[in-house]
Amino acid sequence: MKIWIKNATIITVNENFDVLKNSHVYIEKNKIVHVGKKIPFVPDKIINAKNKVVMPGLINSHTHIAMTLLRNFSDDISLEEWLFKNVFPVEDKLSKEDIYYGAKIGIIEMIQNGTTAFNDMYFFTESIVKAADELKIRAMIGRGMSNADQNVVEEIYNLVRNNKTELISFNIAPHATYTNNKNGLKLALNLSKELKLPIHIHLNETKNDSKKCIKDFKKTQLQLLNDLGYLERHLILAHSIWISNADLHLIENKNVSLVHCPISNAKLASGIMGVNEYLKRGINVSIGNDGPSSNNTLDMFQEMKFASLVSKLKENNPKGLDARKIIEMATVNGAKALGYNNLGRIKKDYLADLIIIDISNISHTPNNNIVNSIIFSTTGYDVDTTIVNGKILYENKKFKIINQNEINKTIKIVNSITKKFK
Amino acid sequence: MKIWIKNATIITVNENFDVLKNSHVYIEKNKIVHVGKKIPFVPDKIINAKNKVVMPGLINSHTHIAMTLLRNFSDDISLEEWLFKNVFPVEDKLSKEDIYYGAKIGIIEMIQNGTTAFNDMYFFTESIVKAADELKIRAMIGRGMSNADQNVVEEIYNLVRNNKTELISFNIAPHATYTNNKNGLKLALNLSKELKLPIHIHLNETKNDSKKCIKDFKKTQLQLLNDLGYLERHLILAHSIWISNADLHLIENKNVSLVHCPISNAKLASGIMGVNEYLKRGINVSIGNDGPSSNNTLDMFQEMKFASLVSKLKENNPKGLDARKIIEMATVNGAKALGYNNLGRIKKDYLADLIIIDISNISHTPNNNIVNSIIFSTTGYDVDTTIVNGKILYENKKFKIINQNEINKTIKIVNSITKKFK
Repeated sequence: MKIWIKNATIITVNENFDVLKNSHVYIEKNKIVHVGKKIPFVPDKIINAKNKVVMPGLINSHTHIAMTLLRNFSDDISLEEWLFKNVFPVEDKLSKEDIYYGAKIGIIEMIQNGTTAFNDMYFFTESIVKAADELKIRAMIGRGMSNADQNVVEEIYNLVRNNKTELISFNIAPHATYTNNKNGLKLALNLSKELKLPIHIHLNETKNDSKKCIKDFKKTQLQLLNDLGYLERHLILAHSIWISNADLHLIENKNVSLVHCPISNAKLASGIMGVNEYLKRGINVSIGNDGPSSNNTLDMFQEMKFASLVSKLKENNPKGLDARKIIEMATVNGAKALGYNNLGRIKKDYLADLIIIDISNISHTPNNNIVNSIIFSTTGYDVDTTIVNGKILYENKKFKIINQNEINKTIKIVNSITKKFK
Repeated sequence: MKIWIKNATIITVNENFDVLKNSHVYIEKNKIVHVGKKIPFVPDKIINAKNKVVMPGLINSHTHIAMTLLRNFSDDISLEEWLFKNVFPVEDKLSKEDIYYGAKIGIIEMIQNGTTAFNDMYFFTESIVKAADELKIRAMIGRGMSNADQNVVEEIYNLVRNNKTELISFNIAPHATYTNNKNGLKLALNLSKELKLPIHIHLNETKNDSKKCIKDFKKTQLQLLNDLGYLERHLILAHSIWISNADLHLIENKNVSLVHCPISNAKLASGIMGVNEYLKRGINVSIGNDGPSSNNTLDMFQEMKFASLVSKLKENNPKGLDARKIIEMATVNGAKALGYNNLGRIKKDYLADLIIIDISNISHTPNNNIVNSIIFSTTGYDVDTTIVNGKILYENKKFKIINQNEINKTIKIVNSITKKFK
């Protein structure tokens, strides 16, 4: 389909971070084919974006989407207690079908809130693939590995080899260094090489897991991964709060992305990532919501505002991360984390993943600075339209990809699944 | 009017923090007359609150509501630079009428987001009184004083003596110790005594203003206020981040309320209030959005979530402030700050300021814990209905107190006022 989005304010997130007023975006099939003032062709569909902002879709680059099932299930508790005492026992009760519905409700929430792609790690991954494919969101999905056995390896082979989707790619996802021994980590690395897939792992999330690695392996997590050969791969490192400065050279000039999950990291009192230091060294940093159970929403706008606020606290400096840096983290840096070099900008030849935001409402009045308002005043509810790969998934705050009856049915089923937790 | 709110989940915020399922609230005139299971009278109006939460209205207990005009005007900057270089020069250009429209758009946003009362400090206070009175929100309003001259004193006399509103009370508002000399502070104290009004002041917001007081007055801010006699008055102390532990005994067992404004305090890199320490000592702590220019929204739900998250970071403890404490801060503690002992709970004989929240939507699915969901998953957009003093101001997400044309006109005017800032 050929789509003309007209009269928009465009936050392009191009290399100059140009913000265009009263301009147009043209989409043909799954690509952006023109951005600017002129009108190159007759479209199949016109979207009027007067008084609205067009920007690249947000990329939630670390989550466990099916954990939506555990939203508000266990709060005000540390990562270790939360994970081992509360989360893992409940996860044992979840079926393949439960995971499908958990992923589905989470993906619906993401599309509504302007997220167009996500990077996942969980189990019953075929259910997550099914939900993502049905709802036409872009995704990179990984099967969590904790000293994985042959069944898990078979599952991964099947997942990758039988993939018939257009928008879903895969990663190899050893859970963490504290849930894998050296053989588990080596197995994951070998799979990554064999299947030519990136590696997605939790790294230095808490002081405790950082200490545990030194105790168990006599080296830091990055040293351990480096010695094994991980740092020659495309790596996605979630959290990365407690990386020691002495190790930073190991990830400079590598295909490594760190994922900042500030709400989850605060909620579990894990700490605050030193984002500015990483960015200054040229390391790619993106943003993720983490699982909705430690957040407890899937609103990347809330995550971006919080990223700004905690950066100022962390550095004791009101400049902190400015709006531009944060928007880049949530868009083009996220695209890089997921392995795309033609995603995350409103730019000719880029993939047509974009969102339209209403800035004419009360909470954006007055609008003294449009870019800043995206960080400080916008929430997911201000998203009007979500387009992924040139397809309109959500328009004028209504889903196009799923009808209201099916949403209501999904809400009902998800609520009934939680009876298992009692 | 007699209102029956039926079939609700009620977060009562009573002394036991009872959460009642499938229960009723009855309102007669401006009071709650019954809470529970039975049906005491035939109402004029029935509100069905099935799958919804009823809770006390939120109290924004420190703000400068007309600063909505400066939303997103100056971000990523320290308090001192922000205030002296950017804010004060622009404020000099604002007219009485501008302040009216700034207050009006801010109050509309608060009502939409479930805030039923606010505590203000600003200038052209008669305009703020006018906007609050027209929109029927509860308010305590103070005329900011910085070494006030006779004109300001006259303004305050007129404001208080000519008040014909039902829902508006006043405070005496010396801006801070760094914008007043000893005579300015004494003048405010005497006015407070003469007019029998509380005092509302910024206290220990930043490390710098705390140091400046010691330099200028050879004592801490609380010692200075204590020596002057402030601590025998009803005092509302905004921010209160850098109070020294040695001074805490000065405010124990006094009619003193501290107001936590965590978003503003992070945005300006002022610091994080040690709320738990204050609460443990029995000191009343409430929550405020501060001016929308340093936030940049008026959403108390966002403020509550952020209060939870930063408390966990501050204390390096995932328990931090739990959901109950934060809801109390935003309701009954706010009521105490504003001088009410019959406000902030869903309880017989309390004033009928309450809100109804939709928890049947996607971002509340599943709902494993209703109280926690209010802190971690709810935003102002989930507010369905806002009732102040028994009057429905907003119902089913539509304003009852102002029509859409007037809202649109207000948005237009507010946007046009900002042309002065260029």
